[in-house]
Amino acid sequence: MTPKPTLAVVGATGAVGSVMLQMLTHHADVWGEIRLLASPRPSGLPPALDATRAGGSRTASVRGEECEILALSEEALEGVDVALFLVPDEVAARWAPIAATKGAVVVDTSAAFRADPDVPLVVPETNAHAARVRPRGIVASPGCTTLALIVAVGSLHAEFGLDELVVTAQQAASGAGAGQDGAEALRAQLGLVAGHDDLGTHPGDVRRAVGENTGPFPGPLALNVLPWSGTPGADGASSEEERVRDETRRILALPALRVAATCVRVPVVTGHSVSVHARFERPVPLDRAHEILATSPGVVLYDDPAAGDFPTPADVVGTDPAWVGRVRRSMDDERALDFFVCADNLRKGAALNALQIAESVVATL
Amino acid sequence: MTPKPTLAVVGATGAVGSVMLQMLTHHADVWGEIRLLASPRPSGLPPALDATRAGGSRTASVRGEECEILALSEEALEGVDVALFLVPDEVAARWAPIAATKGAVVVDTSAAFRADPDVPLVVPETNAHAARVRPRGIVASPGCTTLALIVAVGSLHAEFGLDELVVTAQQAASGAGAGQDGAEALRAQLGLVAGHDDLGTHPGDVRRAVGENTGPFPGPLALNVLPWSGTPGADGASSEEERVRDETRRILALPALRVAATCVRVPVVTGHSVSVHARFERPVPLDRAHEILATSPGVVLYDDPAAGDFPTPADVVGTDPAWVGRVRRSMDDERALDFFVCADNLRKGAALNALQIAESVVATL
Repeated sequence: MTPKPTLAVVGATGAVGSVMLQMLTHHADVWGEIRLLASPRPSGLPPALDATRAGGSRTASVRGEECEILALSEEALEGVDVALFLVPDEVAARWAPIAATKGAVVVDTSAAFRADPDVPLVVPETNAHAARVRPRGIVASPGCTTLALIVAVGSLHAEFGLDELVVTAQQAASGAGAGQDGAEALRAQLGLVAGHDDLGTHPGDVRRAVGENTGPFPGPLALNVLPWSGTPGADGASSEEERVRDETRRILALPALRVAATCVRVPVVTGHSVSVHARFERPVPLDRAHEILATSPGVVLYDDPAAGDFPTPADVVGTDPAWVGRVRRSMDDERALDFFVCADNLRKGAALNALQIAESVVATL
Repeated sequence: MTPKPTLAVVGATGAVGSVMLQMLTHHADVWGEIRLLASPRPSGLPPALDATRAGGSRTASVRGEECEILALSEEALEGVDVALFLVPDEVAARWAPIAATKGAVVVDTSAAFRADPDVPLVVPETNAHAARVRPRGIVASPGCTTLALIVAVGSLHAEFGLDELVVTAQQAASGAGAGQDGAEALRAQLGLVAGHDDLGTHPGDVRRAVGENTGPFPGPLALNVLPWSGTPGADGASSEEERVRDETRRILALPALRVAATCVRVPVVTGHSVSVHARFERPVPLDRAHEILATSPGVVLYDDPAAGDFPTPADVVGTDPAWVGRVRRSMDDERALDFFVCADNLRKGAALNALQIAESVVATL
């Protein structure tokens, strides 16, 4: 009998890392050793979150056992079969190739390799085959906003051929910053505005109440919508908007797909929502679209607005699938559909997709 | 010298009514008598908000004077030159024709007459001329979501010819319910979730914390996004989404315009945000688009994301214009633009637009 493979979880102490440890406890147990690693936090961030600071050895629970969290190092990557990277771009850019050189298959959730033609970008429900060819020993997992919409869009594309996509993503706080920064900043802001019943009624009053406590956001998020996330991209787009376009094109193998994406941040802890307008090459019968969405793996159709049945981020947080509702004809155009998707940005949007990739890789090792 | 005209404010006690009274104090004083009227609240609503309940005579301040609020009646409408209706659809449907029969020009902010071909639907910056022909003596003001986007879209349409519009509106709480119901429900919900740092992390936990306190919303709004507002329309759309389409078509005189609209509710007190993807008949040079938006009456261009300059609802609440940012080329298509608009749904979205119509009507009486 072959021994079970060794898994390394790099970035075990962040927001995605803690979701990953829960998942590893509850998913099919395909792993032998599970080794937890964490990179030192960049200076300036709260040391309470730094599992590797001097004198601060720390453990975390996985599969019902307390495991020590080791500092990320070349030695700590020896003998690893699959390495899940749940760390910021710059940490992944440095360490993922090292892990691959040591013989591990790396599954990386950062943006560091998503545009690399020698690194497949994989969503198992949509393009599982792409994970089989990995010249650098690395497989990339898409960003949380792409992952919220791609399984539903991909299943419709497979039958009707996607022609054009216009999306507005309402991103949750936990998708921003390192570790728990985004969620904590939102909660701190909500505490600052709580009980002030006049707030939200005069220009800038929320901005003054929140003051410097914007956390990783470019302004106050409590009682607000921020039409900017990520860093400046080309031609006025944000990096998050470029990612939705570029990642959707790569995953669907449609390099010239017309995509218009707007990403805004909303005061939701976890759970991205995406408003989708999609046009296809062929006519889309509504009943067939419902049927496809109701039967696609990874998608739950929840669509009866008159009965109050539509997905919301606060209802789907903590669940695995992408939830789809509000499916309807658009513009009286038989080729166009509008719909609304919600998915947990830490689960399908990060940890779950990476774990699905890792499990599919293990099956072929 | 002709005496100044008499203005009636019908619905002086609601959310829009109180904004109107502030505006009347600060706008150019074109009015003689200002008469404040309120309709009895439908049974079942909080009596504290019912200005006309038995024994509850009430006053409100306008132009620095306390004015008694009268019950809406045929007598109370005698001698009125212009009547601003800031009341729910059913009250407007009954009373606006009565006011018109008594000789008043009615400016109605409800949806009761917006689709009536004998009632012009007017945004003064965009189609002021339409207010001159009013067979029923009534002029309708569009809904708050249409008003957030129409001035910016209309100014671009005037030069480039609008061909297709895909919008997602993030609507604020105060746009829902009668009176202050929406804003109060959001504040109550925020109080219920405040201090519970685990909320927003497990399926339905926010829904359980909010319980029955959903107010006028079809679910919990705190820490959430609700992809539904209004009542069920045709083919899976909500009434709010149909209004954006139908009102945009009427105001721009483009009866066959292709419009895809999604309206979601977000936990913002006041201030609607709209993500806009617009395609035009003719090429749109980006610098010319900026120039048009920077110089259009009723629009403020606030667009330098790298410097943190983009409109947000919490920053523009309490101001008059539509604020536009994130203006950028879309889909590498010289005819397509994406941008983001924020406007105060109680001001330009209701009270201000109605007052602008009223002032333009007075100039021609």
